[in-house]
Amino acid sequence: METLPNESSKTFAYRVTAQADYGRAHCGIIQTPHGAVETPNFVFCGTHGAIKGATMEQIKAVGAQIVLGNTYHLWLQPGPDIVQLNGGLHAFTGWDGPMLTDSGGFQIFSMGYGGVIDEIKGKSRPNALRTLLKITEDGAMFRSYVNGRLCMLTPERSVEIQQALGADFILPLDECAPTHRTRSEIVASTQLSHRWEERSLKQFLDHFDDRQRMYGIIQGGIYEDLRTESIDFIKSHPFFGQAIGGSLGVEKQEMYGLVDYIMQQVPVDRPTHLLGIGGLRDLLEGVNSGVDTFDCVHPTRIARHGCALIARPEEAVAKEHINLKNACYAEDVNPIDSECDCYTCRRFTRSYLHHLFKARESTGGLLLTIHNARFMMRWMEAIRQAIRSGQWKSFYQHYIHG
Amino acid sequence: METLPNESSKTFAYRVTAQADYGRAHCGIIQTPHGAVETPNFVFCGTHGAIKGATMEQIKAVGAQIVLGNTYHLWLQPGPDIVQLNGGLHAFTGWDGPMLTDSGGFQIFSMGYGGVIDEIKGKSRPNALRTLLKITEDGAMFRSYVNGRLCMLTPERSVEIQQALGADFILPLDECAPTHRTRSEIVASTQLSHRWEERSLKQFLDHFDDRQRMYGIIQGGIYEDLRTESIDFIKSHPFFGQAIGGSLGVEKQEMYGLVDYIMQQVPVDRPTHLLGIGGLRDLLEGVNSGVDTFDCVHPTRIARHGCALIARPEEAVAKEHINLKNACYAEDVNPIDSECDCYTCRRFTRSYLHHLFKARESTGGLLLTIHNARFMMRWMEAIRQAIRSGQWKSFYQHYIHG
Repeated sequence: METLPNESSKTFAYRVTAQADYGRAHCGIIQTPHGAVETPNFVFCGTHGAIKGATMEQIKAVGAQIVLGNTYHLWLQPGPDIVQLNGGLHAFTGWDGPMLTDSGGFQIFSMGYGGVIDEIKGKSRPNALRTLLKITEDGAMFRSYVNGRLCMLTPERSVEIQQALGADFILPLDECAPTHRTRSEIVASTQLSHRWEERSLKQFLDHFDDRQRMYGIIQGGIYEDLRTESIDFIKSHPFFGQAIGGSLGVEKQEMYGLVDYIMQQVPVDRPTHLLGIGGLRDLLEGVNSGVDTFDCVHPTRIARHGCALIARPEEAVAKEHINLKNACYAEDVNPIDSECDCYTCRRFTRSYLHHLFKARESTGGLLLTIHNARFMMRWMEAIRQAIRSGQWKSFYQHYIHG
Repeated sequence: METLPNESSKTFAYRVTAQADYGRAHCGIIQTPHGAVETPNFVFCGTHGAIKGATMEQIKAVGAQIVLGNTYHLWLQPGPDIVQLNGGLHAFTGWDGPMLTDSGGFQIFSMGYGGVIDEIKGKSRPNALRTLLKITEDGAMFRSYVNGRLCMLTPERSVEIQQALGADFILPLDECAPTHRTRSEIVASTQLSHRWEERSLKQFLDHFDDRQRMYGIIQGGIYEDLRTESIDFIKSHPFFGQAIGGSLGVEKQEMYGLVDYIMQQVPVDRPTHLLGIGGLRDLLEGVNSGVDTFDCVHPTRIARHGCALIARPEEAVAKEHINLKNACYAEDVNPIDSECDCYTCRRFTRSYLHHLFKARESTGGLLLTIHNARFMMRWMEAIRQAIRSGQWKSFYQHYIHG
């Protein structure tokens, strides 16, 4: 197999810039043609090529360095041809910084199995829509949720679409098996994922241009030996970095343990992304295990439902947000967080935000999206600062243990 | 009756700064404690204390000089006490420029008669909610749409609420009678409005402080003699300015004629506001008749439904917007308007905006709100510029006649 010109590239690079005084936490820099990403960092989800309800200008203003687009959604609407006609996803969406697309697999399996997101997190949604029709060696056949058309996603097609979209980082197609599968099913699924990843990488390299790099995805479910096997697979292929996918267990502690197990083995000269995880405590644990980047719809989704992220040392991270729809905020003339420097906290009271949600004014969701996005950026900056200054152990333990 | 310290005030003033070469069009300045409003100008509607889906920062950035809050909505949610607790409507909403509140009457009668907005514009909505229970000499009794509670709006209560809200300009309570009323009903309604306006003014002056001024409202429906009577009423009372309310007829030409009739008689040392009118052609006709300010939900409402304002000289003003949801924009990589300097036109294609609406991403509504708001500000600036430079006649006639 060809080697990916990782090191020779002037446009893409990854290096560790600081090692923490504790754990495997570190700071790093991921260089891309669209600028650098300081790690640890958080990737905002722009599913359809927009951060829901906000402008890219507003997301840039909070200090965001990288956003993600979902290949599944962008494939079905507007389609890669239209994005290409617009000059690629950067020009299309107005985001000129680093960008990542996923393979589209997660959404297909998520909708297909009736909510793999929930299943991965141990919740069941028996009545959810099931659109996944068939998984074969070739790929996954499903029905478009947009127009009901039959679609086939293969590793080659996923990469082709992602090359048309033109994000800096792309992902290979993998199978996202739900949590409640037998071990032998997960073995088969992990092996299928590896074959798909190999085909994805081949497609990528066969049509390689220097604007993009591919991460590999570590699968293997909750089984340590399968995770190790998957890491070995990743190591032996010229991916730019690795993403941790698949089910990480039902309980948080189980997830923290499994991520830590995985992070002991990943190649440290490549950045690691933890897919779909974004709780404040989760980030601390991930960073401590050595993860570089995270993505999750959580901060922006809860914003639209009236919830503002907070981190009060006295409450540790047990309570990670307040719900401004609660009646107790109707007369609260304080900002969400008097130490936050976001537009929302500088200008508006909890009382006003409570009012906007009571009045069903979507400006409320926008103002909380700004706060939560800025919160995440301040949280990541505080983490990086703690690592750089040799204070990581106390920062981490203070928040974990109060 | 006491005299309102209009002229003595250092904080409030109105003066004409330029007279046009045609019609009664003019430029003026309205001075308030929160800054100046150049006229002709357009007032953006922030019904619940927010411009729907956008931030006040974004509305400020397009050049907006004045916004409006609806007393009816703010009374029922969050209530004037909460607004006052937050330091008044300016502090509450984060808008630090000039601001206007209406009396609350329009919405009560609108919901009460099952859509006075539509009736005033000649459309019928027979199935609309009817919440108005009774109109007496004292005021209007209605059911809150928020919690079903019985509420009574009197002239005194309306002014009390508006004084608590603290906008720069407030309006007296009037009755907004629907279009399809008999002449004798409109006579009675106009007289009731005058008695209510007198009580509103008394309440205002009895609790006067220098932070606010009151406009009078000219009623009289489609009857010229009743409009003249109403103007005489307004003239004989110390209002800061006058607003034109009530039905102006069903056809546009009828409206233009009636507004022109009214504008021949209003005191020119006071600014005139035309309530609820915001079409591009309507603004030109209003300005030509001598109107200073306008308000309407139209530009921001159609934005949320995918429509972008445009004014192409070659199409005159017959087609005032394009609907970006139309399939013809799916592959259109032009901005809405290549001459527009708004964030949306500088960064995004029609194709992207079309996509956002297809994907039901509310960012589309926000981006069009920014464009339409900026469009209105550029439109008003073009009008002022034409007046100032002695080009009004040709500007006006070019757009009216193509």
